[in-house]
Amino acid sequence: MTSTYVPGLEGIIGAQTAISMVDGANGRLVYQGYVIADLAEEMSFEEVAFLLWKGRLPSGAELEGLSLELAGHRTLTQGANIALDALPVDTDPMDVLRSVVSVQGVEHKLAKPTIPLAIHATASFPTILAMFHRRQLGLEPIQPRRELGHAANYLYMLNGKESSPEVVRALNTYLVLLADHGMNASTFAARVIASTESDLISSLVGAIGALKGPAHGGAPSQVMDQLEQIGAPENAEHWMREARTRKVRFMGFGHRVYRTYDPRARILKAMCERLNPTFYALASKVEETALAILHEEHPERPQATNVEFYSAGVLQAIGLPKEFFPPTFAVSRAAGWTAHVLEQVANNRLIRPQSEYIGPEPRKPVPLAERG
Amino acid sequence: MTSTYVPGLEGIIGAQTAISMVDGANGRLVYQGYVIADLAEEMSFEEVAFLLWKGRLPSGAELEGLSLELAGHRTLTQGANIALDALPVDTDPMDVLRSVVSVQGVEHKLAKPTIPLAIHATASFPTILAMFHRRQLGLEPIQPRRELGHAANYLYMLNGKESSPEVVRALNTYLVLLADHGMNASTFAARVIASTESDLISSLVGAIGALKGPAHGGAPSQVMDQLEQIGAPENAEHWMREARTRKVRFMGFGHRVYRTYDPRARILKAMCERLNPTFYALASKVEETALAILHEEHPERPQATNVEFYSAGVLQAIGLPKEFFPPTFAVSRAAGWTAHVLEQVANNRLIRPQSEYIGPEPRKPVPLAERG
Repeated sequence: MTSTYVPGLEGIIGAQTAISMVDGANGRLVYQGYVIADLAEEMSFEEVAFLLWKGRLPSGAELEGLSLELAGHRTLTQGANIALDALPVDTDPMDVLRSVVSVQGVEHKLAKPTIPLAIHATASFPTILAMFHRRQLGLEPIQPRRELGHAANYLYMLNGKESSPEVVRALNTYLVLLADHGMNASTFAARVIASTESDLISSLVGAIGALKGPAHGGAPSQVMDQLEQIGAPENAEHWMREARTRKVRFMGFGHRVYRTYDPRARILKAMCERLNPTFYALASKVEETALAILHEEHPERPQATNVEFYSAGVLQAIGLPKEFFPPTFAVSRAAGWTAHVLEQVANNRLIRPQSEYIGPEPRKPVPLAERG
Repeated sequence: MTSTYVPGLEGIIGAQTAISMVDGANGRLVYQGYVIADLAEEMSFEEVAFLLWKGRLPSGAELEGLSLELAGHRTLTQGANIALDALPVDTDPMDVLRSVVSVQGVEHKLAKPTIPLAIHATASFPTILAMFHRRQLGLEPIQPRRELGHAANYLYMLNGKESSPEVVRALNTYLVLLADHGMNASTFAARVIASTESDLISSLVGAIGALKGPAHGGAPSQVMDQLEQIGAPENAEHWMREARTRKVRFMGFGHRVYRTYDPRARILKAMCERLNPTFYALASKVEETALAILHEEHPERPQATNVEFYSAGVLQAIGLPKEFFPPTFAVSRAAGWTAHVLEQVANNRLIRPQSEYIGPEPRKPVPLAERG
C-alpha cells in the first residue's frame, strides 16, 4: 500500500478539483471550464470569484448581489484594528496580513466554511493592506467606498483617490489571472488545514504563510530587487553571466508544471509593454538573457518565465510598492483559497500522508547523569 | 509519472524524517531512536525538545543551556501583548494562539528557521495561553519565573501559584507524549509552508490552524463534552447505543495508523487512573462500551482508543479548563513542529503535488448581458 517516497510530492495527486486546471503541456490555465485568456480582460474579479466559488458565471443580479456583499464587509473588527495598529511600521505586509486576518477571524471560532464567510474574508484583505500602508506613510486611513469594485476600492483605500480606469483595469486583470492555480503549495496548505475540520480563517492564515515563501509568492518583489541591481538592458548579459558564476538564482523563472510559456505571464507581459515601457525594456532583455543562459545550462528544460516576472512590472505600473506585491497576490488568491476550502469540506477526507522513518533504530536512553 | 488519486494521501509518503516513527503495527512511537515509553516519565519536556531538534539527548550542561534559553524568552513583544488584549474574552484559545504567535513573530520577517528561533517560539506558547486565561478570569497576568521548567512555569502563570510536583510531573509527561507524531496533518501543513522558504512562524501559525480541527487536535475538549453528556458509568451503554442510532461519532476513538493500542493512550490511561479516579471510572466504562460497539459494527477494524481520549482526563486533573486542552496540545507539539520545519529546510524541496481536474471541459464564456 505504501509507495516510494517522491520528494516534494512531485506528480502525486494531492486533490481532485473542479476549480482550476493547469494544463502545463498546452500552456493553458482553466477556471471551472473557462480558459484564462477568455476571462482575464473581460471579467471583473467579482465575476471570477463567483465562478470559482459556485462553479458557474453569475447572472447580472447575482453579480450585483455578490458585489454588495463584498462591499458591505470591508471594515475590520475592533480587535483587528487594534492588532493592526500594534504592529511595527516596518512589518512585512505578508505578516500583517497573516496576523490581522487571524485576529479578524476569531469571531467565527469553528464555523463550517461557507460562501458568505469566503466573501467576508476576501473583502477584508485589501482593507488590511491599505490601512497598514497608510499607517506606514503616517497618513490617515481611508474608509472604503461601497460603489467601487474590489480592484478600484483597494487602490482608492491605498491612495486616497480614485485611480484611472486603465490602472483599475490592470489591477483587475492581475487579480483575475492570479486567483487560482491548481494545487500550488499555499492552496494545498489551505486544504490540509481544512481537512482537519478546522475553520476557513485557519486555512487562509496557513495559506498566507505559505505564499510568503520566495519559492512561491514571495518572488515578485525579488524580481524587482534583481532588476534594480541589473539597472539597464545593456548590463543584463554581463551582470547575469557573472551572477551565474556565483550560483545566483534568476528570480521569476522556473515552474514545476508548465512545459510551454505560462499563459498568465504572456498576458502580463503584453500589459507591461503597454503600461510600463521602462520596466518592459529592461525586463524583456533580462528575460531573453535569462532564457538563453538557462537553455545553455539545461537545454532539456522548457522555457520558464513564470507569472511573477511580469507581475512585478504590472504591479509597479499600478503604483504598488514592491513589499505589497506578495500580499496583493494574496488579495487575488483569496478567491481560490476559499473556493478550495469549500470544495475540500464538501467531500472531506483528512489529508494525512505517512512519513518514512530514517532515524536510528530504537535503543535504550542513557540516563542524564551518565551523559557527561 | 502521475499516479492514481488517493483521497487524504493515505499511505502516500509525504516526507522522510528522523524525528519520529509511528510504528502502527507494533503500537510503538519512537522519537529519534527512543521508544516513547522510555521517555515519558523519565525525561523533562526540555530534554525531549532537545532530542527532537538535535537528534540526540543533551548533556547536563546542554540541558541547562536550553532551559535557560527557553526561560529567557517567555515574555511577549509589545505588539503581541496589545493584540492579545484586543481579543474578545470569549475567543477560542486556539485562535488566540494562532493570532498572537503570528504577531509575536513579525519581527523575524523571512528569517531562515534555526534552533534558537524554534526555542523562542516554543517558549512563547504557554505565556500566550496563560495571559489570555488570566484575562478571561479578570485577573492580573503572572510574570514567568526563570527557575521553573516549561511545565511548571506554564501552570504557575495560569494559576498564580506553584502546582504540586505530582501535577507538574503529569503535565510534563503529557508534553513529552504529544511532542511529535510522524506526518500528522498539522506537522504536514508546517512542512508544506516551510517548503516555500517561508519563515518558522508562518509554519507554526498554519500548524496551529490545522491542529484546531476536531479531526486532529480539537477532539479532547469534545471527549469531555461527550463524557459530561453521558454523566455516569451506568448510563454509558444506553446513551451510547442510542447515540449510535443518530450516527453520533464517539469522540476519542479511531486513528489512521495504529493497529494496536496507541502507546500514548496506554500511558495516559494509567495516569488517569492514578490522578483522576472519577474521570477514570466513567471514561474506562465509556471506552469499554465504545470499543464493544465499534467492534460489533466493524469487527475487521482494530481497537482504536486514541491519544485524545485519556488526554482529557489528565488535563482535567491538572486543572485545565477544557477549552485549553487543544492549545496545550500545541504547547507540546510546538517542539515537533519546529523540529520538522528545521528538518524540511535542511534538505528542502517545494511540496507541491498535482491536482486532478474534474471540472467541465473548456468552453467559451457567455457574456454577462446574455446570462439573464
